[in-house]
Amino acid sequence: MTAQDILDPLLDAGQKGFPHHSAPLRRSAIGGQGWNVLRGDMPLPLAVIKRDALAGNLAWMQGFAAGHGVGLAPHGKTTMSPQLFRRQLDAGAWGLTFATVVQLRAGVAAGARRCIIANQVFRAIDLQGIDDLKRAHAGLQVAFLVDSIAQLELIESWHQASKDVQPVDVLLEIGVAGARTGCRTHEQALALAQRLRASPATRLLGIECYEGLGATGQSDADIAYAQALMQRVRAIAKACDEQQLFETDEILLTAGGSAIFDLVADQLKMPLSRPVRGLLRSGCYATHDHGTYHRFMNAVAARMGCGHGLHAAMEVWAAVQSCPEPGLAILSVGKRDISYDLELPMPIAFCPQGQAGITAAPPDWKIAGLNDQHAYLRGTGAEHSALRVGDLVALGISHPCTTFDKWRWIPLVDAQYNVCDAIVTCF
Amino acid sequence: MTAQDILDPLLDAGQKGFPHHSAPLRRSAIGGQGWNVLRGDMPLPLAVIKRDALAGNLAWMQGFAAGHGVGLAPHGKTTMSPQLFRRQLDAGAWGLTFATVVQLRAGVAAGARRCIIANQVFRAIDLQGIDDLKRAHAGLQVAFLVDSIAQLELIESWHQASKDVQPVDVLLEIGVAGARTGCRTHEQALALAQRLRASPATRLLGIECYEGLGATGQSDADIAYAQALMQRVRAIAKACDEQQLFETDEILLTAGGSAIFDLVADQLKMPLSRPVRGLLRSGCYATHDHGTYHRFMNAVAARMGCGHGLHAAMEVWAAVQSCPEPGLAILSVGKRDISYDLELPMPIAFCPQGQAGITAAPPDWKIAGLNDQHAYLRGTGAEHSALRVGDLVALGISHPCTTFDKWRWIPLVDAQYNVCDAIVTCF
Repeated sequence: MTAQDILDPLLDAGQKGFPHHSAPLRRSAIGGQGWNVLRGDMPLPLAVIKRDALAGNLAWMQGFAAGHGVGLAPHGKTTMSPQLFRRQLDAGAWGLTFATVVQLRAGVAAGARRCIIANQVFRAIDLQGIDDLKRAHAGLQVAFLVDSIAQLELIESWHQASKDVQPVDVLLEIGVAGARTGCRTHEQALALAQRLRASPATRLLGIECYEGLGATGQSDADIAYAQALMQRVRAIAKACDEQQLFETDEILLTAGGSAIFDLVADQLKMPLSRPVRGLLRSGCYATHDHGTYHRFMNAVAARMGCGHGLHAAMEVWAAVQSCPEPGLAILSVGKRDISYDLELPMPIAFCPQGQAGITAAPPDWKIAGLNDQHAYLRGTGAEHSALRVGDLVALGISHPCTTFDKWRWIPLVDAQYNVCDAIVTCF
Repeated sequence: MTAQDILDPLLDAGQKGFPHHSAPLRRSAIGGQGWNVLRGDMPLPLAVIKRDALAGNLAWMQGFAAGHGVGLAPHGKTTMSPQLFRRQLDAGAWGLTFATVVQLRAGVAAGARRCIIANQVFRAIDLQGIDDLKRAHAGLQVAFLVDSIAQLELIESWHQASKDVQPVDVLLEIGVAGARTGCRTHEQALALAQRLRASPATRLLGIECYEGLGATGQSDADIAYAQALMQRVRAIAKACDEQQLFETDEILLTAGGSAIFDLVADQLKMPLSRPVRGLLRSGCYATHDHGTYHRFMNAVAARMGCGHGLHAAMEVWAAVQSCPEPGLAILSVGKRDISYDLELPMPIAFCPQGQAGITAAPPDWKIAGLNDQHAYLRGTGAEHSALRVGDLVALGISHPCTTFDKWRWIPLVDAQYNVCDAIVTCF
């Protein structure tokens, strides 16, 4: 696949949201077509990303990391968009994070040369896939997580059975009792680090944890949770350093999702015998949202005492297709088009059919349910009663990841909903 | 786009599940590669479709429709797979059903020439899109739903403003109070039918309803619900026929999702002044599932008194990546890969690392949660305690639609999980 295929692929009307009558276009040509979402130039439903909010988010998060003296390796799983990967790297990201080798391949194709797989890798096909990628791209660094001797033994089996493969770079994952992956105890972690150090199949580069699963949005609880976890991580890092278990010039210390990254950022710096690079791995910040991450960031802002610069950049537009009963309007958008895993979408704006101006959705409007291809917009007030077939409604989302993965391309729009650019995704 | 692009596109390692090391391949070449899922030839997670169950399901549903003297227009939104569209048509389907004009385009590209859009269409871009498609494909029939005068007025505005466009073919949608789209009353439906008959912009072809949203799985309730709805539909069809509101040689009467289609099939036949074609629109039958539709079909079988021939054809395979605590194994599969909207996936089988034989999952195994890229497999018995990193686990699904839309291609496998064919999707 060429760089053009990845960064500037051909899009056509087989992809939802693309105008039916348009000839196929390179992604980079879309911004020049003069399309406007509110004018009816594009079929609905349509996910859009607000250009200015996106640019602001990319800059703010990079600035946050720089201000705290840590690097940023944004999680690519959120967007899986080569164009956004490039913009994150161009904004100053240290590298990118992925969940699988397939995702890693997309990132490398987009130009990433420092990559973390924040996940266990152990199958021969995946280990070989990383080795092949490193051979094909000189200087490519890929580190993945290890949290068990059993996983290490599988890596060693592959390494022994394979001819002429490099040792793999790994991060020791520290976990939390009752939670997901990661070593539960200091002793277990240290014993695994010693095995990793001794193994010819692995090079231990640093320590990883993920604090995001424990986040509640309640600052007292979240501060205590993050502190306890990061204390354990730092104690293990110190012990590994004292025993000279790290096999690298620069020790990586990484944590940080999109919910309480402010509570771990400063903990990723510590004096060890070699330089330490702290790395945050937030992913959802790129578009932010109107739900879960909006609430988490309110708590971050309260803790920071100075606000934050993230703005919800993603909306999904749909049309009212039926007003079958008082208080109920059915929208042409459903589970195929928008996040519903953390909470249902929320109406944020509307635009009566044939008009160009948008109005904020009144607070009585609620999405009461989603089918595969329909949404139930309920409301009690006069604005809801005034809704007509053909009116447009914008929905905000909760959880960017599960809206991105429902679109193969997404237009970027300006404040007037003119399409000024586009990204593609490769889920 | 050529037929080859649609039916036999080039796949490559950018698509999850495709072996990292393989060169790009035409879809039709995949079955000849000798890949085996259990042998580790493909990265996980991986959705697979069991070839024989799929073939059986396609044949059984077609036979059910034929046996009841009605046609089948399978809902394409479930799979959005041109290869499966072709197989459904080749199996004898009257046509295909879609939810949007974008989906319709994919179906027409795959060869469908009789199409229903089981949804309201009213925006100029979509109406023009249908008109363009009909011009490009001689003999193409497309009928969509109308349920309000407001929608009709938008269609008429488009028709008046457009030069040289054909009237659109429509079906009158009958709905249920408190439910989704569709006319709520006999009077409302008849008044709209009269307006449709009088309008130069529309041709009324028949009557539509969707009974699936009211299905509970309790036969007594479902029989009463379907009977009441179908009585209304038939009364409206009769009234429309008496008033000569249908503008077609053959009147279409269509209902039928995948849950209680047996309760509406016979109601789609009735003596009117012109021939009546009954049409079922089930979509999920192609792969069936291990959850919601499995339970619905148990009730169907009980009502039929002779069993049914649908078998769960879709599985998602993942590897155990960590066993961090007794009773907990973390699998490399998450919300990006598998349905979670109706219920969480269910473990159905496992295969210890390096072995080729599979064992049924014990009943104490449960998926307790999903993150974006992880699943939590909990269990209490000895088999769970014996799970090791690298072991493979197969998950069954509930709701095929929301697993299909997470994959751009899916291999077909035989009973030994040899990959013998592949389909692509175009969501």
